[in-house]
Amino acid sequence: MSANIFFERKGPFLLNEIFNNIQFKKKIKIFDIKPLEDAKNIDLTFLESVDYIDFAKSTKAFYCITTNKLKSYLQKNCEPIIVENVLFELCKVTKKFYPSADIDSPDSSLKSPKKSSYSKVKFGNNVLVGKNCKIGNSTSIGSNSIIEHDVLIGDNCVIGSQAVIRNSLIGNNVVIQDGCKIGLKGFGFIPLKGKNLRFPHIGKVILKDNVEIGANCTIDRGSINDTVIGENTFLDNQVHIAHNVKIGSNCMIAGQVGFAGSSIIGDSVSIGGQAGVSGHLKIGSNVKIGGGSGVVKDIKDGTVVMGYPAVPLKDFIRNSKK
Amino acid sequence: MSANIFFERKGPFLLNEIFNNIQFKKKIKIFDIKPLEDAKNIDLTFLESVDYIDFAKSTKAFYCITTNKLKSYLQKNCEPIIVENVLFELCKVTKKFYPSADIDSPDSSLKSPKKSSYSKVKFGNNVLVGKNCKIGNSTSIGSNSIIEHDVLIGDNCVIGSQAVIRNSLIGNNVVIQDGCKIGLKGFGFIPLKGKNLRFPHIGKVILKDNVEIGANCTIDRGSINDTVIGENTFLDNQVHIAHNVKIGSNCMIAGQVGFAGSSIIGDSVSIGGQAGVSGHLKIGSNVKIGGGSGVVKDIKDGTVVMGYPAVPLKDFIRNSKK
Amino acid sequence: MSANIFFERKGPFLLNEIFNNIQFKKKIKIFDIKPLEDAKNIDLTFLESVDYIDFAKSTKAFYCITTNKLKSYLQKNCEPIIVENVLFELCKVTKKFYPSADIDSPDSSLKSPKKSSYSKVKFGNNVLVGKNCKIGNSTSIGSNSIIEHDVLIGDNCVIGSQAVIRNSLIGNNVVIQDGCKIGLKGFGFIPLKGKNLRFPHIGKVILKDNVEIGANCTIDRGSINDTVIGENTFLDNQVHIAHNVKIGSNCMIAGQVGFAGSSIIGDSVSIGGQAGVSGHLKIGSNVKIGGGSGVVKDIKDGTVVMGYPAVPLKDFIRNSKK
Repeated sequence: MSANIFFERKGPFLLNEIFNNIQFKKKIKIFDIKPLEDAKNIDLTFLESVDYIDFAKSTKAFYCITTNKLKSYLQKNCEPIIVENVLFELCKVTKKFYPSADIDSPDSSLKSPKKSSYSKVKFGNNVLVGKNCKIGNSTSIGSNSIIEHDVLIGDNCVIGSQAVIRNSLIGNNVVIQDGCKIGLKGFGFIPLKGKNLRFPHIGKVILKDNVEIGANCTIDRGSINDTVIGENTFLDNQVHIAHNVKIGSNCMIAGQVGFAGSSIIGDSVSIGGQAGVSGHLKIGSNVKIGGGSGVVKDIKDGTVVMGYPAVPLKDFIRNSKK
Repeated sequence: MSANIFFERKGPFLLNEIFNNIQFKKKIKIFDIKPLEDAKNIDLTFLESVDYIDFAKSTKAFYCITTNKLKSYLQKNCEPIIVENVLFELCKVTKKFYPSADIDSPDSSLKSPKKSSYSKVKFGNNVLVGKNCKIGNSTSIGSNSIIEHDVLIGDNCVIGSQAVIRNSLIGNNVVIQDGCKIGLKGFGFIPLKGKNLRFPHIGKVILKDNVEIGANCTIDRGSINDTVIGENTFLDNQVHIAHNVKIGSNCMIAGQVGFAGSSIIGDSVSIGGQAGVSGHLKIGSNVKIGGGSGVVKDIKDGTVVMGYPAVPLKDFIRNSKK
Repeated sequence: MSANIFFERKGPFLLNEIFNNIQFKKKIKIFDIKPLEDAKNIDLTFLESVDYIDFAKSTKAFYCITTNKLKSYLQKNCEPIIVENVLFELCKVTKKFYPSADIDSPDSSLKSPKKSSYSKVKFGNNVLVGKNCKIGNSTSIGSNSIIEHDVLIGDNCVIGSQAVIRNSLIGNNVVIQDGCKIGLKGFGFIPLKGKNLRFPHIGKVILKDNVEIGANCTIDRGSINDTVIGENTFLDNQVHIAHNVKIGSNCMIAGQVGFAGSSIIGDSVSIGGQAGVSGHLKIGSNVKIGGGSGVVKDIKDGTVVMGYPAVPLKDFIRNSKK
């Protein structure tokens, strides 16, 4: 992950500017907050679950927010910063580095695009484009659509009308139909009575080449990681993709399917209409998920599942006949 | 419920102008049509179900549309007006008082907001605002959004782009993401072959302080009552809330959840993605509803439910293992 | 089906311009590609499933794309053109006749409507209308809505704000609420690794008189046939209707219901919220489908069904009690 082009980063901060109540041996400057696998030695990282202990063993970070229980999984050069609630602390630290990523304020740099800046782009009426956007040749953008600052769109894309695209990198030959809202902040917060603490979303949405997104879909950007849709994956209308979801290539996702946060979907997966995939799951490649199914467990490569909760097809048929 | 600021009310009407076929002893003027609990002695009210007999016993109204079967529940000073189909008559009476509330015609008062009227509001491009709107300090409204006449929005709110807000009262620190449609007429009508009779929707949407609404949500206004979302309740993307639903404070409603009309949800309720709540239910406080569940019965405080139909979690797990 | 007013048709083509590898006895000119029941002798047709053998026996077409297995169902004057994958060949042929129907490029003819051309229509602000549209008397179109070229809208309709309507014929007294996307290309393609082959959608959407469509609905146009919603059928918010679906008159479709492609729904059908109907089904008239149900089989007239998969109500209740 290179520099964050969408959100202004504050800092660097000294470790004891970040954690006032903790004593640190050295005067360490921290430049950014990153996941275990992306962090360098100048970054702070975090370990909140045993799901990530493989990354913990090889992280390059020198400091990691974690719990007393999880600290032993960290590689020996990485010093644990022990807290009670990793996500709560992570939320506060991320907000210190990225103070404007927790609420999607409207982009004040939006303007009618200048013909001279986008000579090979075909714009509909009333299109608004933010500063520093790059839009490829032969791409068209439908009327009333909004492309916020720093978004990159490749060549030969067709973006429909009434769309909003923020914090996104979009490949070539991508089709996005009318009314999509892509790159918004996800549904991540620490519940607190009276006033929840919103998790800053500093990730982005990446749509690879040849992706198609149906009408009125919503694709949230990642919180710390990115939300990614692989090459030649097609989504039907009204699909909802939460933050940090990663979908492989050549998938078919039918109408009104929903993905909760952070699930990882393999390649050549087909998902029937209105199915739902819970958060933090791993769905293998060549999986088929029947329409209306509710997936609550990991699924291995090549499995066909159906039902709520989703089970292998032969079990579903047997149960239905009982 | 004070005067209706969103819909022009006709009348007052004499009772026999409203019910031509019924003889009334006195020449009574009726000023409005209101639910049992809100009606004063100058208003007409209605009782269509035993669910509301507690209100029937204490209503201040002198006249109530009801059936022969239900009339005995009314307090003795309230005279029943006996009909076959209460909702059909209520629909016709409401339309007499509020002739323009059954179809959402576009607001002809929409204009680009004048800087002088909204000096402390930050508007994106092409925002349209109707007459008599009040928008608080430090609130921002995204590009292409539409705020129709008489809508009130508090301080420090962030309204996204491509949103439409009608007939709504919005508190402070409220976040509404891109593409939401709030305050529209609900899905209420008397089915009639060839041409349904639409129920006028004279209620509004109330979003209390610190509410967050995800992208592309739809929240219909109330028919006779209001649709209310309590303080610090957060909704994810593509949630649908039908007319008259009341949701308490500190709730978490995940993506693509749907509520049918008139259900009442307590405080601190969490609902997983794609769950559905049927109409006219009472869901207690501190309830957890699993993703994809279909709730068809009332749920008591503190219960965890899952499944379709939703049952207590331990029953769901037992059934799934069978 | 008369001439296609929405898509430019190329041709006519000689049969061996269409199928280079096949030898034809005569030099036949083909003018269009049409379903069995609509094709005339100058058109090419196709038979891909035994579901359509009744039409195969009476088609007027002289040439039909089909398989070796299905060819015997064709009436004797109709010569089979044998292929391995009918839909793949159909896709290629349709794209030859209609090269621009597989991706919804923005309509470059959109403009602010001239008062003189639409003197009896009430437009909100920033409405865009394409060339050759006809909009009836006393119809109103909300702000920021887009009506693309050649769309016909009847009298006395109310179209909300932020809507997009393409490739559609809309009757009288139709209500379309805010944010609907109607007439877009459906989710039809031949999956090919790396770059799917999109099926051209040359059909349209037909909304008959007195239809109502709730907010943020999506209704895709037909691929070869049309998508049709019958008289006085009402849809609630966030309903998704896929290509080629045909819904009868006087139906009630609650919020977030989804229909997969090509299903046919009778008259006076009521469908509860979040229910899903699979593709290519026949649902009779006077059917009631419970909220959240998943319909995967044909349903006979007058049946009440519920569950996933949906079964007759008494079976659902019995199963739930087990």
